[in-house]
Amino acid sequence: MFSPLNMNPARVSRYSAKRHVHMSIRIFLALIASIFVGSAIQMKGASKPNIVMIFVDDLGYGDLGVYGNPTIRTPHLDRMAQEGMRFTDFYSAASVCTPSRAGLLTGRYPVRSGMCSDRRRVLFPNSKGGLPASEWTMAEAIKGQGYATAAVGKWHLGHLPQFLPTSHGFDSYFGIPYSNDMDLLPGSPGGAARSLEPEVEWWNVPLMRDEKVVERPADQTTITRRYTQEAVTFIKSNQEKPFFLYLAHSLPHVPLFRSPQFENKSLRGLFGDVVEEVDWSVGQVLNTLRETGLDQHTLVFFTSDNGPWLTQGPAGGTAGLLHEGKGSTWEGGMREPAIAWWPGKIKAGGITSELASTLDLFPTFARLSGIPESEITQKDGYDLASVLFENGRSARPHFAFYRGTRIFALRMGAYKAHYLTKSAYGRDPVVEHENPLIFNLLHDPSERFDIAGQRPELVKAFENLRTHYLNEVEVVPSQLEIVD
Amino acid sequence: MFSPLNMNPARVSRYSAKRHVHMSIRIFLALIASIFVGSAIQMKGASKPNIVMIFVDDLGYGDLGVYGNPTIRTPHLDRMAQEGMRFTDFYSAASVCTPSRAGLLTGRYPVRSGMCSDRRRVLFPNSKGGLPASEWTMAEAIKGQGYATAAVGKWHLGHLPQFLPTSHGFDSYFGIPYSNDMDLLPGSPGGAARSLEPEVEWWNVPLMRDEKVVERPADQTTITRRYTQEAVTFIKSNQEKPFFLYLAHSLPHVPLFRSPQFENKSLRGLFGDVVEEVDWSVGQVLNTLRETGLDQHTLVFFTSDNGPWLTQGPAGGTAGLLHEGKGSTWEGGMREPAIAWWPGKIKAGGITSELASTLDLFPTFARLSGIPESEITQKDGYDLASVLFENGRSARPHFAFYRGTRIFALRMGAYKAHYLTKSAYGRDPVVEHENPLIFNLLHDPSERFDIAGQRPELVKAFENLRTHYLNEVEVVPSQLEIVD
Repeated sequence: MFSPLNMNPARVSRYSAKRHVHMSIRIFLALIASIFVGSAIQMKGASKPNIVMIFVDDLGYGDLGVYGNPTIRTPHLDRMAQEGMRFTDFYSAASVCTPSRAGLLTGRYPVRSGMCSDRRRVLFPNSKGGLPASEWTMAEAIKGQGYATAAVGKWHLGHLPQFLPTSHGFDSYFGIPYSNDMDLLPGSPGGAARSLEPEVEWWNVPLMRDEKVVERPADQTTITRRYTQEAVTFIKSNQEKPFFLYLAHSLPHVPLFRSPQFENKSLRGLFGDVVEEVDWSVGQVLNTLRETGLDQHTLVFFTSDNGPWLTQGPAGGTAGLLHEGKGSTWEGGMREPAIAWWPGKIKAGGITSELASTLDLFPTFARLSGIPESEITQKDGYDLASVLFENGRSARPHFAFYRGTRIFALRMGAYKAHYLTKSAYGRDPVVEHENPLIFNLLHDPSERFDIAGQRPELVKAFENLRTHYLNEVEVVPSQLEIVD
Repeated sequence: MFSPLNMNPARVSRYSAKRHVHMSIRIFLALIASIFVGSAIQMKGASKPNIVMIFVDDLGYGDLGVYGNPTIRTPHLDRMAQEGMRFTDFYSAASVCTPSRAGLLTGRYPVRSGMCSDRRRVLFPNSKGGLPASEWTMAEAIKGQGYATAAVGKWHLGHLPQFLPTSHGFDSYFGIPYSNDMDLLPGSPGGAARSLEPEVEWWNVPLMRDEKVVERPADQTTITRRYTQEAVTFIKSNQEKPFFLYLAHSLPHVPLFRSPQFENKSLRGLFGDVVEEVDWSVGQVLNTLRETGLDQHTLVFFTSDNGPWLTQGPAGGTAGLLHEGKGSTWEGGMREPAIAWWPGKIKAGGITSELASTLDLFPTFARLSGIPESEITQKDGYDLASVLFENGRSARPHFAFYRGTRIFALRMGAYKAHYLTKSAYGRDPVVEHENPLIFNLLHDPSERFDIAGQRPELVKAFENLRTHYLNEVEVVPSQLEIVD
């Protein structure tokens, strides 16, 4: 550090003159360098922007530093938010895994593709169904524009060959086909041991490359690191061609595993270790983009499939100030941390409370890849370009909170109406609210103060919106009920 | 913006040469300027560092952007945290106003000064007691080292002349002597009108300068702005002498008021408007320090007196992921946002989960002002220098959560034991836990998972600690029970 405090004026003069010359040379060299870098970017600029979608599993609204977690350190995601845009009112398409992922990849409410059910909430190893071939995925759409596409991580949209990523628009796949807690072997311990001291061998989860099982059980301790290596390799090998990378971490879903480097690293315990390794992974991806000079030419979007798994005790995350978690249509079940990053294109440090959803990523990515608006047939998503690139308003007027095939709640602007409520995983019956509960989520994100009684016009408006959804969003037979 | 993308190489060369010369001249001028500024800082450097303590009222753990609030925008406090250090495990000395302020200013648990009670939780307009003259306040201590001292804002440690700031070490005082909801006039509306649409005239709160009432009722709509002007004027008029400024905002305590410029500014409604004006005020203070060149020579500390007033509905704040709020010895009642700022001295962007409290600010400030450690007789505080300036460990091994005169809970390292629990403001009896509830707050900040049954050694260690506190911390007769 240059500190004038310790110098007499004569020394400062000499030093400053010398420094002046040095600085001038450095500025000149920097300018020369910028011309070459500029050309390189321009060359890449002629092509389409790359898209990286990072999707994590069961991360809650309050689990990142930048979203207020006290003891989980996420410097890479915090920096991503400082350099990019952070959403405060961003929803996943469902409160559990399979329908949430179907919503993301198709841009359609999962009832439309049969990827939800009122009997089985997700796909299981004995399932014979999956995402129908008739669905147009974001991978297919973007691939159609000349992109290289790769899926790395958890799939959970059907594990039979016809449902795997390589049948849905991805050139390649490396990951586990369903949740990391499935295929539990008989005799494995339950309770706190299973959630806080798990052993890889208690599960028989397969790790696949394309359509083949390459490891079983998957070594989950190194899985985050291996996903990251796959992602980095994919980016590095596609510097001359636009690419779409879907990096779907299988953690921090319970059971929790991390590499030796992250053991006992976090103040937050095992769950914190795992989130901090996921954060490290995000840092690796962003650093790779910076190092390859692709950063100014790549949109990276980070979010989670659903809220924290609260019934897992300290092995589950936190929804912060939101009510409830995974499995619930209260805010904690579906409102997610969400960060968009594209240096030079997205203004640094923005925070938006505009209404948005994973359903909106299909049209947003599709438009960026070059598909004309008129050719995007998905009705449930809204292009987020104005929010991301102009700090503008969201085109999304409303959003539906489905549980299985039923609309439990609706959001319209600042307001949310609950028609049906139920605990996330309890055996309690569904409660029907003849008079819906209505909350102003901008004023009352914790859903504590029901204002329906004072706002009859809102009750009426929501009833019209509910009718609209019931009429417009078709519920097709479930894929999740097709089993052995 | 300089963008090489739109330039041909020839144009870039000409531009770069011209830019090069301009930059060189600018660098030279900047160096010359830095010599003069350097001298000025050096002159100030010979004197002691300034100290600014900003204390706000009823702000919850989850009410700032940087602590995860979705719809309250606090760019100045967020920047203060980015440039300074943010605490995640920082406690006020009590869960309500009077004892919390007594703890801050004396560095002693409020039971030692009689500034708490099991019958009346704070001082009221009919109180005749106050902070005893025998107490050594941080203002007296720092003033003794040659500092100019000023109190601006809410006092609430006795409103009779012998208890006012000017009797406790402050050269001057401008503010309200007790809470902004006291002196409610008969006939004023209650309920939602009082909390969400208050009128200044419903209260008869006095505004004082030194020992005189200068306005009654205080115009609370402009009070945050006027406190800020006082603070800025005080800083500007003490550029040649070290100063201690205690800026104790009377908001966002209910009733909520803000200047016209902040009306309907926040997405969060009235409470958000008020917090955003407080944030603006912090920005004014920091900008004044930057503009006067005092920023590298001033420690600014920001925190709140207790948690959010949850019983006030949407007019109260949020404790984020913490349980309960103001009035409670659960985390939400006493864990606070806390940010320390001193450019060049505190490393930018640090987050610490070290255990700390407002009780620690007396020894921290006293040492900075030049008082030798041996002369600091307060036993309840620990100098935070190693945490602040070396990113080191806190010297604080434990902390007691008093409610009135009784120890409700204790923290030791990561762990907290509850011996007594009670709702914040309900009429329910105090519950005595024969077996204390014990939580690991680093793993479980929401206090959901009692681990006492698995950790008998912790139960024993906490019992020893409780005995230590009962023996060592003397409870003197209450000042709060002295009334008309």
